[in-house]
Amino acid sequence: MTRIVAFETTDIRFPTSLSLDGSDAMNPDPDYSAAYLRIVTDAEDDLSGHSLVFTIGRGNDVQVAALGVLAARLVGRELEPLLDDMGAANRALIGDSQLRWLGPEKGVMHMAIGAVVNALWDLKAKQAGLPLWQLLARMSPEDLIGLVDFRYLTNSLTPEEALEILRTAEPGRADRERELLATGYPAYTTSPGWLGYSDDKLASLCREAIADGFGQIKLKVGADLEDDIRRLRIAREVCGPDFPIAIDANQRWEVAEAIAWVNALAPFQPAWIEEPTSPDDVLGHAEIARGVAPIRVATGEHAQNRVIFKQLLQARAIDVMQIDAVRVAGVNENIANLLLAAKYGIPVCPHAGGVGLCEAVQHLSMFDFVAVSGTREGRMIEYVDHLHEHFVVPTEVREGVYVAPLAPGAGMEMKAESRIAHEWEAARVAG
Amino acid sequence: MTRIVAFETTDIRFPTSLSLDGSDAMNPDPDYSAAYLRIVTDAEDDLSGHSLVFTIGRGNDVQVAALGVLAARLVGRELEPLLDDMGAANRALIGDSQLRWLGPEKGVMHMAIGAVVNALWDLKAKQAGLPLWQLLARMSPEDLIGLVDFRYLTNSLTPEEALEILRTAEPGRADRERELLATGYPAYTTSPGWLGYSDDKLASLCREAIADGFGQIKLKVGADLEDDIRRLRIAREVCGPDFPIAIDANQRWEVAEAIAWVNALAPFQPAWIEEPTSPDDVLGHAEIARGVAPIRVATGEHAQNRVIFKQLLQARAIDVMQIDAVRVAGVNENIANLLLAAKYGIPVCPHAGGVGLCEAVQHLSMFDFVAVSGTREGRMIEYVDHLHEHFVVPTEVREGVYVAPLAPGAGMEMKAESRIAHEWEAARVAG
Repeated sequence: MTRIVAFETTDIRFPTSLSLDGSDAMNPDPDYSAAYLRIVTDAEDDLSGHSLVFTIGRGNDVQVAALGVLAARLVGRELEPLLDDMGAANRALIGDSQLRWLGPEKGVMHMAIGAVVNALWDLKAKQAGLPLWQLLARMSPEDLIGLVDFRYLTNSLTPEEALEILRTAEPGRADRERELLATGYPAYTTSPGWLGYSDDKLASLCREAIADGFGQIKLKVGADLEDDIRRLRIAREVCGPDFPIAIDANQRWEVAEAIAWVNALAPFQPAWIEEPTSPDDVLGHAEIARGVAPIRVATGEHAQNRVIFKQLLQARAIDVMQIDAVRVAGVNENIANLLLAAKYGIPVCPHAGGVGLCEAVQHLSMFDFVAVSGTREGRMIEYVDHLHEHFVVPTEVREGVYVAPLAPGAGMEMKAESRIAHEWEAARVAG
Repeated sequence: MTRIVAFETTDIRFPTSLSLDGSDAMNPDPDYSAAYLRIVTDAEDDLSGHSLVFTIGRGNDVQVAALGVLAARLVGRELEPLLDDMGAANRALIGDSQLRWLGPEKGVMHMAIGAVVNALWDLKAKQAGLPLWQLLARMSPEDLIGLVDFRYLTNSLTPEEALEILRTAEPGRADRERELLATGYPAYTTSPGWLGYSDDKLASLCREAIADGFGQIKLKVGADLEDDIRRLRIAREVCGPDFPIAIDANQRWEVAEAIAWVNALAPFQPAWIEEPTSPDDVLGHAEIARGVAPIRVATGEHAQNRVIFKQLLQARAIDVMQIDAVRVAGVNENIANLLLAAKYGIPVCPHAGGVGLCEAVQHLSMFDFVAVSGTREGRMIEYVDHLHEHFVVPTEVREGVYVAPLAPGAGMEMKAESRIAHEWEAARVAG
C-alpha cells in the first residue's frame, strides 16, 4: 500500500516581460509563471507526480493557494484507489460542493483541480513506464469512457455516442501509433508573431519558421489595424501566397468590430482568426463565424470547461477547437473535449507555449490521433520556443513536427534546479 | 488628500452545516463564509470601505488570498481619483492583464475584484452620507453610463441604448423614490425550502411565510422526484392554489432531465424553475425554457459575468434574471446586468441569503426600480433569515417587503465583534 505523504507547491516566475516575449493585444507584459505542484508518496520507486498551472505573473500566488487547499484532500490518502479509478478521483475533486461554489468549474479553483488531476496522471504514467499519450491510447474504449464526467454534456454527447467514437477508432490504433512514432505530429509556430517585435524581427522569424519546416505561422493582431495590415503584408511576402498564416486577436474585439477587422485583413488570406472576442461569448463567436466565412474561427485556450466547448460546437461557432492542457480540469475534462470535437468533426489544434504547455498538450493530440479522431488531417499543435530547457523531458520539435515523447509521464516535470532558481523571490522571502 | 493606508482581509466562517440551513441538491453541507475586506484611509472622518465575497466554506482562504493580491493595487494610492471616477477604477482593476489570465472575468479572481469595487462604493456612499441605492439613483444618466464597461456587450446593448433607458426613467425618479420609501420592495422567502428540513418543518415554515406577508416562497428540488412531489404537495396544500411557489434545482440536472422533471412537477404550478442545469449552459437553458413553457426559467446567481447574462437574454433562455451582489465584478458590472435586463424587458429578482447578500443586493433592486426599469412589477428580492444579526445595518423585512435602508453605505459592513468572533480558527492559528 502506498500513501501520499506530501503535496509540495512552488510559485515559479520568469521575467519574460523584459523581452516582450508573449506580448499580444490583451497581454502587453506577461511574466510567464507556473503554480507548480508535486505529489510525493512513500513508495520505494521514488516516483512523484508533477504538474503546473500556467499563469502570466501577478496572481500566481493565488493559484498556488488554490492548489494548497487541495492538499488536505490528498495527503495521507492511499494512492492505488485514486490511480486505479481516475474517473472517480476526478469526479470527487470536481464534486466537492464547497470548492465548487468558487467557480463552479471555472477559474482559479477549477485550474487547481486540473493540476491535481494532471499530477496524478503523471504519476500513473510513470508507474506504467509509459508516456501519457501511450498510456491513454492503450486503454479500452470502456475504460476511457469511465474517465469522462458527462454531466451537462448529454444533450450533445451521450456516453453511448462517445463509446461508439472510440470503438470506431480502435482497430486502427496500432497502425497509427507506428505512424506517429515514425512521422510525429504537425506543429505550427507563433514565435514570429508577438506584437512587441519589430518588422525586421518579424520578417526574419518568418523566414526561420519556414526554414525550420513549420507548416503554419501565427501573428498577433488587434491592437492597431494599420499595423496589422503592414505586418501581415510583410509576413505574406516572406512566406509566399500559399503558406498558412493564422491570426490571433486575444479577445480584443467587439463582435461587429471583429467582423469588420477580419474582413479588412481578408486579402492576406488568414488561415484562421483566433480569439476574436470574449471566450465566454458563444453566440458572439457564432455571429463572427457567419460574418467572416470562409475565414475560419478558432478559440478555446480560455474556454473554462467542457460546457463552453459543447456550446461552441452546437452553435457552429468555431471551425478549429483549441484545447489547453491546464485551463480545464485536467486530462479527464480534455478527453471530454476531444470526444466533443470528434462528434462534431471539428479539428483540435491545441494552444501551447507558456510554461510547459507544449510539453503537456502534445500528449492529448497524440492520444487523439491514435484513439479518438484517428486523423492528423488539418490538425497541428502550437509551438513556441520558450523555456523548454527547464523541463526534464523538453518538447522535441524537428522539421516542423512534434516528435512523440517516449519518456514515462505527462510531461510537465520541471528540473529541480530550475524550480529552485526561478522560485519567486517574494514567495521565498515570505516562506 | 486622502490615502488608502490599509487593506484588511478576514477569513470568516459560520458552521451552518450543523443545522442543514442552506442545504440543497448540490450543496448538502455548506458552511456559510465570507472573505471579508476592509479598506482603510488616513482621513479624519474615520470611514472605511467594507465588503465581502460569500463562499460556502472550504476555499474561503483562497478567496481571501485573491483579495490580498489586490492590496498592492490600492494601498498607498490617493482615494479621491478612485472614488471620483468609479468607472475608471473598475476598468483598471478588470483590465489588469496578468490577473485577467486567471479568469478571464470569472471565478475567484473576478469575485475578488468585485469585492474591491464594492468596498470602494461602500466608502463613497458613506462619504456622501447616502445609502448606495440612493447615491446611484441620484446620479445623472450620463454618469451612470460612465460606470459601465460595455466591452463585449455592444452587439446587444450599446451605450446609446443604455443611456436612452436611463433617460426614459429619469422623470419618474423622485416619485418612485417616495413610493419606495413608503412601501418598500417586495421580498420572497426561501426559508421553508431547504432540502434537509423535515416535512413538518416545511409545513410550519410555509404557514409562517404566509403569516409574515411574503408574496412567494421557494423550495429546493432535484435530489429525488418522489420527495419533490411530496414536498410540493405539502407546500401547495398549506399555501393554497394561487400562492406563488418557486422551485430551485441548484444546477442538478441534464437538459432533458430538467424538462422531464419540471413537467412532472407542473401540476403544482411552480412560479419558476431556478438553476435547472449548468449556469454556463446558455443554449441548454434556452432548450429547457422551450421545453417547460409556460413555467418560467430563472438563473443567474452563478452567472460569472455580464457576457453570460447577455447571451441568456439574447437566446431567450430566461424569464427571470437573478443577479448576485458578489459573484460578478461588483456594483459596476451589476449596473450593466440591470441595463441588459431592462433592454430585454426581463424582471430582475436577485439571489440573496448567504452572508450579507440580502444586505447588499437590496441596494441594486431599489436603484433599478427608481432609475433603470422603473417598476417593481413581477420583481422581488430573495430573503433568508440567516446571520443578519452580524451586520451593522441588518436587512429589515416587514410584512414581506424590504424596507429601504437609509444608513449610509453599501450594506455589507459586519460588526467588529462578529468579525472577531467568527474569524476562522485555522486562520487565527496560522496568523
